[in-house]
Amino acid sequence: MKSDKLKTVLINGALGRMGKSLEKVIKESKGKIDLIKVDQSRTNNCFTFADQINFEKSDLIIDFSTPQGTLSVVEFCKQNRLPAVIGTTGLSQSTEQQIEELAKVVPVVYASNYSIGINLLHQLVSLSARILDQSFHPEIMEIHHQEKKDAPSGTALSLAETVRVARQWRDTAIIRDRSSDYKSRERQQVGVQSLRGGSVAGEHTVFFLGQNERLELTHRAKDRIIFAQGAWKAAKWLSGKECGLYDMQDVLGFSRI
Amino acid sequence: MKSDKLKTVLINGALGRMGKSLEKVIKESKGKIDLIKVDQSRTNNCFTFADQINFEKSDLIIDFSTPQGTLSVVEFCKQNRLPAVIGTTGLSQSTEQQIEELAKVVPVVYASNYSIGINLLHQLVSLSARILDQSFHPEIMEIHHQEKKDAPSGTALSLAETVRVARQWRDTAIIRDRSSDYKSRERQQVGVQSLRGGSVAGEHTVFFLGQNERLELTHRAKDRIIFAQGAWKAAKWLSGKECGLYDMQDVLGFSRI
Amino acid sequence: MKSDKLKTVLINGALGRMGKSLEKVIKESKGKIDLIKVDQSRTNNCFTFADQINFEKSDLIIDFSTPQGTLSVVEFCKQNRLPAVIGTTGLSQSTEQQIEELAKVVPVVYASNYSIGINLLHQLVSLSARILDQSFHPEIMEIHHQEKKDAPSGTALSLAETVRVARQWRDTAIIRDRSSDYKSRERQQVGVQSLRGGSVAGEHTVFFLGQNERLELTHRAKDRIIFAQGAWKAAKWLSGKECGLYDMQDVLGFSRI
Amino acid sequence: MKSDKLKTVLINGALGRMGKSLEKVIKESKGKIDLIKVDQSRTNNCFTFADQINFEKSDLIIDFSTPQGTLSVVEFCKQNRLPAVIGTTGLSQSTEQQIEELAKVVPVVYASNYSIGINLLHQLVSLSARILDQSFHPEIMEIHHQEKKDAPSGTALSLAETVRVARQWRDTAIIRDRSSDYKSRERQQVGVQSLRGGSVAGEHTVFFLGQNERLELTHRAKDRIIFAQGAWKAAKWLSGKECGLYDMQDVLGFSRI
Repeated sequence: MKSDKLKTVLINGALGRMGKSLEKVIKESKGKIDLIKVDQSRTNNCFTFADQINFEKSDLIIDFSTPQGTLSVVEFCKQNRLPAVIGTTGLSQSTEQQIEELAKVVPVVYASNYSIGINLLHQLVSLSARILDQSFHPEIMEIHHQEKKDAPSGTALSLAETVRVARQWRDTAIIRDRSSDYKSRERQQVGVQSLRGGSVAGEHTVFFLGQNERLELTHRAKDRIIFAQGAWKAAKWLSGKECGLYDMQDVLGFSRI
Repeated sequence: MKSDKLKTVLINGALGRMGKSLEKVIKESKGKIDLIKVDQSRTNNCFTFADQINFEKSDLIIDFSTPQGTLSVVEFCKQNRLPAVIGTTGLSQSTEQQIEELAKVVPVVYASNYSIGINLLHQLVSLSARILDQSFHPEIMEIHHQEKKDAPSGTALSLAETVRVARQWRDTAIIRDRSSDYKSRERQQVGVQSLRGGSVAGEHTVFFLGQNERLELTHRAKDRIIFAQGAWKAAKWLSGKECGLYDMQDVLGFSRI
Repeated sequence: MKSDKLKTVLINGALGRMGKSLEKVIKESKGKIDLIKVDQSRTNNCFTFADQINFEKSDLIIDFSTPQGTLSVVEFCKQNRLPAVIGTTGLSQSTEQQIEELAKVVPVVYASNYSIGINLLHQLVSLSARILDQSFHPEIMEIHHQEKKDAPSGTALSLAETVRVARQWRDTAIIRDRSSDYKSRERQQVGVQSLRGGSVAGEHTVFFLGQNERLELTHRAKDRIIFAQGAWKAAKWLSGKECGLYDMQDVLGFSRI
Repeated sequence: MKSDKLKTVLINGALGRMGKSLEKVIKESKGKIDLIKVDQSRTNNCFTFADQINFEKSDLIIDFSTPQGTLSVVEFCKQNRLPAVIGTTGLSQSTEQQIEELAKVVPVVYASNYSIGINLLHQLVSLSARILDQSFHPEIMEIHHQEKKDAPSGTALSLAETVRVARQWRDTAIIRDRSSDYKSRERQQVGVQSLRGGSVAGEHTVFFLGQNERLELTHRAKDRIIFAQGAWKAAKWLSGKECGLYDMQDVLGFSRI
């Protein structure tokens, strides 16, 4: 393990949307941090991973790249004993196993969603689903911009799964279209409704609709930079930690749901 | 036409949910009003229409009954030249024609939704859909209690129709399930999403989601008594009016959408 | 201690708003419960506490009365070893001490707010205030009906106190009117804003407004019967418990905030 | 008047926040528009108004500058018969008179708020306040970022004024702090509550809280670029219009409130 103090950070995927957001967040944060920017191309002061110039002087690597890019990162971190924050999605099981191997020698954060608010929302939903009895019906609504191609959002489905686990339901019917029913609502259900339009960055509300009272838990993202903010928080938290595999629930200090 | 001042009101369907709400609203309103309660049964101080005792001393009839009950009302009103407020749903075309005939000799209000707020919401949605250009995407969300059997609500579908007319779209795709898509949102669409749970009396939000700004128009009903309140408002408005067929848009003083 | 099974429940303050709601809730609940109704007057099948007829056959007393009424309850429970659920507000310190004494011999629930949702909201707010760093600014909004005489609501002030404790702030400025300021928002503040109008039963939203994301936690009460529902839940929970002084956080299974 | 087609637009105050937003909006809009950028300094390809090079080839001037800058604009437009869109705030009465003079020879838009959504919101609020009777109580809530120095927002106060005019109230009590009262809500009041925190660009909700139902009209701005979008819409609308003084209500096609 290198020193506790982050001085030089390597960003892999530096030219991607997340990479650029990270650069912005790190430059605006307190303390002088040197950045090494790595991407597939050599443009914009970027190296490729093949260049390997001075990379070993990094204190930590943050990776928001491609499954292939992540593989290079994991290998490099293992050779150079570098902690890593990994946010690339769509990794294969084999890559995930290599991440677990890496975590035996250095500390690693690997999470699918780095937003602080969304991670907290999962905790709040889990607590609410456990405390409120079955007469409180969970329903989820999410809103995203017109260009988002999939529905419901991955986060909405993941929140529904958090409800299911908290309620100890074996199977949960995710209801995306209530018009097919023509019958009363059943108990072990979570409705997940998606709205699309305009430039909405991302909003999720989990309702618990009870008899004569209800709870509404809403997260509104204004800008996708919050994911970079969360990843940078994870990087600072990771520095000096024991080796091991962590996720954002650990970074934020939650007990696991 | 009888005098402008309501003294005696006949409620047809007095034992139904709406009839009881009407009785409550009228008893709590200012001024002493005598009620004649008519329903299919003779219990609870109710007459049936066959009884015909003193009914002609009514100044006005409010009808929330059954298609068959409405037929009796229309006939009786024609014979006795009584104004009518009709809220029964599911009427046949032939009954609707008889209502139009009736409206040639007395003033009649016939509307599908007597809530003041919902009628106003239609106006606000129509105005917004016309003023905001096509870059503002309309989406509708509605929430109702767990026992509501149909989805989307009739009101939500009717609000979608108001958007379509205001935007002069030939056909509108009502999108009830965005998960089937996997493509960007198209322009001439209104998403209509239904949430079900708890004891929610009825809520409708119409969103206009634009680039960097949005509008949200929400109506929340706490109790279905608002429909009785609206019908009573219609009855008082009707008293002394010219013969003709009116709806709640007239009662509230709107120009037609 | 009497048997675990509630068969007969004595309601003190049976003619008050809460007493009537309790009667309704208990009658609609599963299992046959006999009610003994006690109030200051002897009307409506009510006894006064002076009557003392058969009261000792109660399994539990629920008290929503007056500070004086609560005193009689505490004394009676002590003599007859009866568990108690106490919801009367405005008790003197001396009465509260007697409740503590009572709790040494029987189990007692004493809470200022029996709503399940509001008690959960306190937990969610506490967790959020601890997890989210100081860049997330807490603000509270509450809405109540036009006749509510005090502002802010006791619940809103209590939620602000929950934020203060969770954030370990020594003093918290509760800001009720931002118009006096003309300066940027300071850190150790909770804004508490009150809206009044119509027939709103009671709504509270706690916002955590951060950089580019925010969390909104909302509780909406539709009817004040939820307080009776919570008290009845407390009564059933209490039956068979060890002696001791409990509050709704215990009933709902929370660790103390 | 020059041709109907905008080819060259002069922005006065080009280096200010609004000027930069305007440049962005115009560059992203359809059709090739040449920009002449004027500001107090000569940096960043900007001229000062004293330079007067080629300015007369502009088809229209958009002014978001200072009261002094606006004076130069008005004079220049008069000499060169150029239409103007003026958004500078804090103008003196004398400058406003000169704008009226200018509007006798060219078309001019002069408005205090160029957001399309906010201008529409005024219309919706006015209509609602007129249609809903006095039992619907108006309340306003607004949320802005932590750095906003004044409260309530100018827009919130202006919405309260729209309610007052629509309701034909002589005087309206604007209630910013309900805690001082300790009495029931009075009729001819508008509560205006301000929340501050995080990076919220600007949100306004007007509530009409009635008996058993309510209406909520919400505008959410995500970015202050919407004011530039509105000004650019005004500019395109203005091109080819008769001389006269217009505001955003005209641009959006409303009848005056």
